[in-house]
Amino acid sequence: MTKFISTRNIRFMIKEIFDSKSLTYYPYYSKHNEKMFDMVIDAALKLAVKLMYPVLEEMDQNQPVLEDGQVKVHKAVKKIMKEFGKGGWISSGFSEEHGGDQIPLIIRGTASFIFSAANYSANAYPELTTGAAELITSFGSREMVDTYVAKMLDGKWQGTMALTEPQAGSSLSDISTTAYPDGNDRFKIKGVKTFISAGDHDGVENVIHLMLARIENAPPGAKGISLFVVPKKRLDDQGDLIFNDITVVSIYHKLGYRGTPAAEISMGEKDDCYGWLVGEENKGLIQMFQMMNEARIGVGLASCAIASAAYYAALDYTQNRLQGRPVTLKDPLTGQIPIIEHADVKRMLLFQKSVVEGSFSLILQCCMYADLIKVSKGEKKEKYELLLDLLTPVAKTFPSEYGIFSTSNAIQCFGGYGYCEDFPVEQYFRDIRIHAIHEGTTGIQGMDLLGRKIVMKNGKAGLLFLEEVKQTIQYAQGIPELEFFAQELEKSMKQLEKVVGFLFNAAGEKGIDIYLSDASLFLEFYSLIVISWQWLIQGIAAQKALSENCSKKDKNFYNGKVFTMNYFFRYELPKTYGLASRLTDKDNLTVNMKTEYFKD
Amino acid sequence: MTKFISTRNIRFMIKEIFDSKSLTYYPYYSKHNEKMFDMVIDAALKLAVKLMYPVLEEMDQNQPVLEDGQVKVHKAVKKIMKEFGKGGWISSGFSEEHGGDQIPLIIRGTASFIFSAANYSANAYPELTTGAAELITSFGSREMVDTYVAKMLDGKWQGTMALTEPQAGSSLSDISTTAYPDGNDRFKIKGVKTFISAGDHDGVENVIHLMLARIENAPPGAKGISLFVVPKKRLDDQGDLIFNDITVVSIYHKLGYRGTPAAEISMGEKDDCYGWLVGEENKGLIQMFQMMNEARIGVGLASCAIASAAYYAALDYTQNRLQGRPVTLKDPLTGQIPIIEHADVKRMLLFQKSVVEGSFSLILQCCMYADLIKVSKGEKKEKYELLLDLLTPVAKTFPSEYGIFSTSNAIQCFGGYGYCEDFPVEQYFRDIRIHAIHEGTTGIQGMDLLGRKIVMKNGKAGLLFLEEVKQTIQYAQGIPELEFFAQELEKSMKQLEKVVGFLFNAAGEKGIDIYLSDASLFLEFYSLIVISWQWLIQGIAAQKALSENCSKKDKNFYNGKVFTMNYFFRYELPKTYGLASRLTDKDNLTVNMKTEYFKD
Repeated sequence: MTKFISTRNIRFMIKEIFDSKSLTYYPYYSKHNEKMFDMVIDAALKLAVKLMYPVLEEMDQNQPVLEDGQVKVHKAVKKIMKEFGKGGWISSGFSEEHGGDQIPLIIRGTASFIFSAANYSANAYPELTTGAAELITSFGSREMVDTYVAKMLDGKWQGTMALTEPQAGSSLSDISTTAYPDGNDRFKIKGVKTFISAGDHDGVENVIHLMLARIENAPPGAKGISLFVVPKKRLDDQGDLIFNDITVVSIYHKLGYRGTPAAEISMGEKDDCYGWLVGEENKGLIQMFQMMNEARIGVGLASCAIASAAYYAALDYTQNRLQGRPVTLKDPLTGQIPIIEHADVKRMLLFQKSVVEGSFSLILQCCMYADLIKVSKGEKKEKYELLLDLLTPVAKTFPSEYGIFSTSNAIQCFGGYGYCEDFPVEQYFRDIRIHAIHEGTTGIQGMDLLGRKIVMKNGKAGLLFLEEVKQTIQYAQGIPELEFFAQELEKSMKQLEKVVGFLFNAAGEKGIDIYLSDASLFLEFYSLIVISWQWLIQGIAAQKALSENCSKKDKNFYNGKVFTMNYFFRYELPKTYGLASRLTDKDNLTVNMKTEYFKD
Repeated sequence: MTKFISTRNIRFMIKEIFDSKSLTYYPYYSKHNEKMFDMVIDAALKLAVKLMYPVLEEMDQNQPVLEDGQVKVHKAVKKIMKEFGKGGWISSGFSEEHGGDQIPLIIRGTASFIFSAANYSANAYPELTTGAAELITSFGSREMVDTYVAKMLDGKWQGTMALTEPQAGSSLSDISTTAYPDGNDRFKIKGVKTFISAGDHDGVENVIHLMLARIENAPPGAKGISLFVVPKKRLDDQGDLIFNDITVVSIYHKLGYRGTPAAEISMGEKDDCYGWLVGEENKGLIQMFQMMNEARIGVGLASCAIASAAYYAALDYTQNRLQGRPVTLKDPLTGQIPIIEHADVKRMLLFQKSVVEGSFSLILQCCMYADLIKVSKGEKKEKYELLLDLLTPVAKTFPSEYGIFSTSNAIQCFGGYGYCEDFPVEQYFRDIRIHAIHEGTTGIQGMDLLGRKIVMKNGKAGLLFLEEVKQTIQYAQGIPELEFFAQELEKSMKQLEKVVGFLFNAAGEKGIDIYLSDASLFLEFYSLIVISWQWLIQGIAAQKALSENCSKKDKNFYNGKVFTMNYFFRYELPKTYGLASRLTDKDNLTVNMKTEYFKD
């Protein structure tokens, strides 16, 4: 079997690190137990191996086509939606009231990690449906829930997030799709949406767009945006599905992520497109962002899943490919060695492992916060909310940006073969590249972190984060083998404090544009520290396990963890030195650079 | 017209920085003058615009196919080979004796930069032919030259470099293709070669492989490898071309660089494949490496050409795409601004510009050294040879590795549109990825720099480099605006000295495997300093020009140079801090990491 994830690592994460069964002590999750969690993950892996991985390449090679106004996708999509509906995968996180299983996000996220590692494009269909249905259950009326949600959770109807317009991508406040009141909560919709993932396809009976639009005469900007349900086919009075005047204008041909169509759709060309208001008027953006956070963590998760698949492909290849000899033994009469024995190849593998497992750890940390929010109150709940808010841009961006390097390194491990379609790594390199763009580009994430999250509630989130890290450091200081790492992380936290102090000063003296000008780099700087923290958490668990009796196999696993932590602290964390120097430079270079200086 | 290179920057480089006309004072180049150089470059641009850029996308979308044993390529290839032959582009650098024009490499390199920026795959055909023909004129007999070279330089016959075998990629000493003596200098050839670029196609009458093989009973390893000319069709006694028993086994489907086929070929399946020895027996590798150096600079050049095309696509798009508002002005009633006005977008553009123009500068520097080698003697010649040898791994690797980030940043400037085939940047991102692999991977280049170039002749090359940089620093110190940069480069050189000292110590104390374990990172560290040096050279010229009277347009251009130098010193050079810390760490992590620790 081709390996695209490590079940051993999953076990380590959800049991030894995050103790996910502790969630089952809360009433909301009390129907579950550890064994059931294990079964969910086993079942996910079976589904991924049986249904998703086998069509990874096919779905890439046979892109969706638009024929007679209908998007046609790989036939596996129909099957996948059906199985995901039937198996309860789309609904698993919903409350029982809405037909779900109340499975915590840390377990669902792990399943999603497995699915995306097997075939990211295939997993996008059910995931998008889950997200859209969640918006309806969170903000829609009972009637709306009854009309749409069951069909969506069954995998019969596709859900989408329809935000982007040709003139409004990163700048969502500029969307112009208009909703004209038509009595009650029904509106006539006119406009164009673009880059709608799974925006139309023949693997389902209907497509339900969760769409941002502006009610006629609404206030300009973000404050005038509302959320609507706009189905591809609407129900008539007899309960039959009829055409709702949505036309697919075109679908994009993409670098990767080719198994899922990105559609441009036009609403109301015949003045016969209807939508229904979800939640309150003019609260669309706030509502959307409530689920956007989860979507962003989902992007990070998918990135590290793809990077995981690439890493295991490279790990397998480098153990079997013979090439070259040890540096100290160049006798051409001796046999060639597996390339994994070359230090440079080990470095590339350690880099990939550190990115994949470091990111995965952070994402599960975020999932755990989300799960705890659901069952907490008051100060505790606020703490988890703030930490989740703070870390979301990191969880979205670090895996998606470092994932590009990580899959690139996987290609490099294969040499020329990696550049060819004979191996899947070139596809992973293409697939992963979307993640630094969709659900808010890296630039947007940087602004979110520095411009919003760091300063919200007087910096309370940052202080809570500091406390969390301090706890980890204290724990590590008690273990002799980890002293160095505790020390390094402490130094980094001090450096972080200095950088933030400098930036606050700059904001006061020079203004907010200077403060935010290197926000993307601040995000990278911050991420390296956050991931180091997650590695130290893993290092503590591994070192503890090593000091106890453990099998030879486990010993190798824990040693691998310790080495990879070591790698991250010694090869990646030092990147903060240059970044800190940059972030505390007073030149304001990019603000002062003029457009005309680019002209040559 | 779509812009893929800057003629203004080319002018700056070959006139203001490298004063290429100074070469015409040497007898070898004395037939030329500045105006002729200008004409060559103008003509190259016209050809690129007319013949190459228009088929960039088509050649990518319609990959070569193997039909009935024949590789069929885009019909433009035939035309391009013909025009390049007729126009003297394939032969331009050859001596007059061999039918060439003795045009210096700095001018030919610039032309090649233009061609590769327009369409890298298309340019590969003539370039490979030039390289192969050069091997024949350098080492082949008069008869061999007569038989092959004229046809190759005419573009009628394709040339290739046939090195790689399935079991011998990076480890060339393991090649097993065998040559059996057949009287005189003729040999029967048996074996398989793979990844042969332009290894077969229907755009030419014949394909001439410059092939490494092992003469029966030759010594094992690198010392037993000889160079052969092995034509697809050989001449019979009547002077007719007949089948030479080379079979195309397959062609690869690749991530990018799709316009050029990479073929696997099998020689002698019917025991009827003949090759002719080029130069001396068992000197094949040394001979091949004489031209490999130029090929490696060519790879760097092509990388920065592709990155240039991506940069200008992004520069154009970001000036026309309206999205968002200034950070300090969020009123939704004001119009959206071109995204180039956002600091983060300017940062991404500056990064690309700094990589493209910094690399181009280094490559022309290398070309200039090569040109001077041709006309120098004694100590001077040795100096240029050593500098060229030293800087070749940097010139090959920095553009090919940083070019991946650079084209990735171009995609990011386009947002979602950059991920789609509607714009060429996704192709550039795919095309450029080959360059860190072929002609010696990044890992091989790192070993070459640290294991060979730094230590050759007792480190003489490094000392010569130090002198060159010192001169630049001294010059810069005389210009108040450049003091900071002179200082930073000086600091970096000291840091370099420290790192090298540390590594030499480690080599002595712990052995060569420890010394070389982070060679790839040393190469990155070294490259950042080398490119900073090239930026300071450019900064000096720009600052001087700004202090004199210049047009508004030129002022913008020179200010752009100063800002980009500034960018490189403040955003990229500080990456050396983390790298230096890594390189002087004593943990030997990647050497100690064991294969079994990866197993999970």
